[in-house]
Amino acid sequence: MNQKLGKQTVVFGKPPVIISHAAIAGAKEGEGPLKADFDMIVSDDKMGQPSWDLAEGAFQKTAVELVLKKAGLHSNDMNYIFSGDLQNQCVATHYGIRGTNIPFYGLYGACSTMIEGMSVGALFVAAGYAEKTLCLTSSHFCSAEKQYRNPLEYGGQRTPSAQWTVTGSGAVILSSAGKGPVVTHVTTGRIVDKGVTDISNMGAAMAPAAIDTLVSHFRDTGFKPSDYDLILTGDLGTVGSEILCELIKREGYDMDGRHNDCGKMIYNIEEQDVHAGASGCGCCATVLCGHILKEMERGRYRRILVAATGALMNPLTVEQGESIPAISHAVAIEMR
Amino acid sequence: MNQKLGKQTVVFGKPPVIISHAAIAGAKEGEGPLKADFDMIVSDDKMGQPSWDLAEGAFQKTAVELVLKKAGLHSNDMNYIFSGDLQNQCVATHYGIRGTNIPFYGLYGACSTMIEGMSVGALFVAAGYAEKTLCLTSSHFCSAEKQYRNPLEYGGQRTPSAQWTVTGSGAVILSSAGKGPVVTHVTTGRIVDKGVTDISNMGAAMAPAAIDTLVSHFRDTGFKPSDYDLILTGDLGTVGSEILCELIKREGYDMDGRHNDCGKMIYNIEEQDVHAGASGCGCCATVLCGHILKEMERGRYRRILVAATGALMNPLTVEQGESIPAISHAVAIEMR
Repeated sequence: MNQKLGKQTVVFGKPPVIISHAAIAGAKEGEGPLKADFDMIVSDDKMGQPSWDLAEGAFQKTAVELVLKKAGLHSNDMNYIFSGDLQNQCVATHYGIRGTNIPFYGLYGACSTMIEGMSVGALFVAAGYAEKTLCLTSSHFCSAEKQYRNPLEYGGQRTPSAQWTVTGSGAVILSSAGKGPVVTHVTTGRIVDKGVTDISNMGAAMAPAAIDTLVSHFRDTGFKPSDYDLILTGDLGTVGSEILCELIKREGYDMDGRHNDCGKMIYNIEEQDVHAGASGCGCCATVLCGHILKEMERGRYRRILVAATGALMNPLTVEQGESIPAISHAVAIEMR
Repeated sequence: MNQKLGKQTVVFGKPPVIISHAAIAGAKEGEGPLKADFDMIVSDDKMGQPSWDLAEGAFQKTAVELVLKKAGLHSNDMNYIFSGDLQNQCVATHYGIRGTNIPFYGLYGACSTMIEGMSVGALFVAAGYAEKTLCLTSSHFCSAEKQYRNPLEYGGQRTPSAQWTVTGSGAVILSSAGKGPVVTHVTTGRIVDKGVTDISNMGAAMAPAAIDTLVSHFRDTGFKPSDYDLILTGDLGTVGSEILCELIKREGYDMDGRHNDCGKMIYNIEEQDVHAGASGCGCCATVLCGHILKEMERGRYRRILVAATGALMNPLTVEQGESIPAISHAVAIEMR
C-alpha cells in the first residue's frame, strides 16, 4: 500500500523500478570527468538541425531512442511520457517527442523537471495507471544562452556566480516490475521565494527551495541525512551548494560530507572555465541517468536522495525587478 | 477500483468530486453572454499590477482565493496544486500562486492546461495521494498579444481565422469526498502534428488533436457521442470547430449537434469583433469553471465530455518554418 507521510511525501508499497536509463551529452560535457558513463557523446551540438531550438529537441529524441533500446522496448510499450524543458513553451520537448505517439503530460519545473517527471511517473506507476512510463528532459547551452542571456555572437562576459547550461538529455523508464534501482519515496516541492533578484546567481535563488524540500522530506519520513549514502541536488553549483550546506544546519540537519551537486560534477570546473559549475534541466538529467544510476548498479551507493531545483522566473520578470521564485522536487532511490 | 481502458483512458472506481469551482473574467469577457455566471468580473484588466505579465498572475491568485472561499477551505487543506499558463516559463502561475505554500507540480499543456490539470489532479485523488487538489490556469489578452504576436500599441490587423485570447482564470477543487459533479474518466492525449504552419489559424492546427483524443476516448470506453449531453472542446473557435465536426465523421462519429466549443461561447462573436472566437488557457478555464459546471448543477447537462486543446509551438519555431504540434486532453464529468 502506498502511504502519505506528512504533508509532502508519498512512500510506495511496491516501489517503481528504474528498468532503463540513458544519457546523451554534448561535446563539452563529453570532455568532462563523467564522459565514460554517458551512453552517447555528440561532436556536433547542432545535431544536424537548422536551429539550436530544434537541436535540443533532437537530443530528447535520441535520449528516448537510447533508453528504449537499452530496455529492449518500443515506444508502444510506454503508457505515458512526461517531459518539459527550459525553452519558451517547452518546444524542445514537443518537437523532440512528437513522433513517439505516447500519451503525454507536459511539465514545467525548470531545472527540477527530471525529478518532477520521475515523481509524477512513479506516482502513476505505483497507482496502477501505468506499467511503464518514460520520463525525460533536456537543456542546451546555445538555446539557453540565446533565450535567457545574450546571443552567443555577442560574447558577453559571465560573472563568477554564473553557471554553464549543460547540453544534453537524460531519460529513465519506470516500471511496475523488473530489475534495477527503485524509487521508494516522492517528496513534492513548494514554491519558495526569498527575494533573490540576481539572474546570474541561480544557486542562491534555488538553495532555499532545496532546503525546504529536504527538510520536509526528513520531517515527513523521520529520516536524517546519514540514512542516505548520497544527497544529490540538481544544479545549485558551487555557490548554491555552499549556501545549502550552511543554511540547512540552522534547520538542525548536517550534510556531513554526504551532499554533492550535479552542477559540480559534470565539468572540470576550473579547466573547463564554467565559473560556478553547471546548470539546466539537462544537468541533473545527464548526471543522474548517465552516471549516478550506474554508480548505484556498480555498488557505490545503496540509498540516495535526489532533489532537483528549478528557478521559476523568466528573463522579463527579472528585468521588471521581480524576485526569483524557486522549487525543488525530491525522490529517494534505492538498490535492493 | 480504478481501471485502465484501452491505451489512453482511466475510469475511476470512486470518481473525484468537483467540490468547488470559480472563474474570474476580464472586462471584455464580462460583457459577453456568460457574464452572469462568472464569480468575479474585473474592470481593470491590469489588476493594479505594474505589468500584464504580473496582472495575469493576479488573476490566478484571485481564482485560488475564490475557489477556496466558495468551498470554505484554506490553502492548507489542499494537498497539491496543478497549474500552468501560456507565458514564457509559465510565470503567471509561479508569481500568482507563490504565496499559497501548496505542494506544486507545474504543467505545460498550452490551452489544454485546465483539463491537463484536472486529469492529473483527478488521477492523484483517485489514487489516494490527495484528499483535495486545486487545479487552475489563466490567460490574458494583453500578455499573450505582446508575447505571441505584436505589441498592443502597434495595432496590427487580425486575419479572419485569428482568435481572441481570453483574459481570465478558472479553478476547481477536486476532492475524494463531497458534493458536486464528478470526474468519471480521464483520456490522456498524444501529440498530433498535421503540418499546419499558420499561427493565425490555431483552430485548424488543434482540431486534429481533438479528433485523436475524442476518437481514442470513444474507442477506449465504447461510448459514442450520443452518450454525452455535451461534447465541449476548449478553444477551437468557429474555424476549428467546423473542421472537427466535419473530419470526425470520417472516423465514424457524428457530433449530431452535441458539440460546442468554449471559444464560441464566451463572446458575442460578431458584436465583440473577435473574428474566429476565443482562445487561451483561460477560455476553457472560465467557461468550464464559471458557466458549464453551473449548468450541470442547474440540471441542464447530466454527462459531458470536455476535451481542451493546446498548440505546442512557440512564435520562434513557427518563424523558423516549423509546423504546429498540438495535443488534447479529455475528462468526462457527470452529475450523480
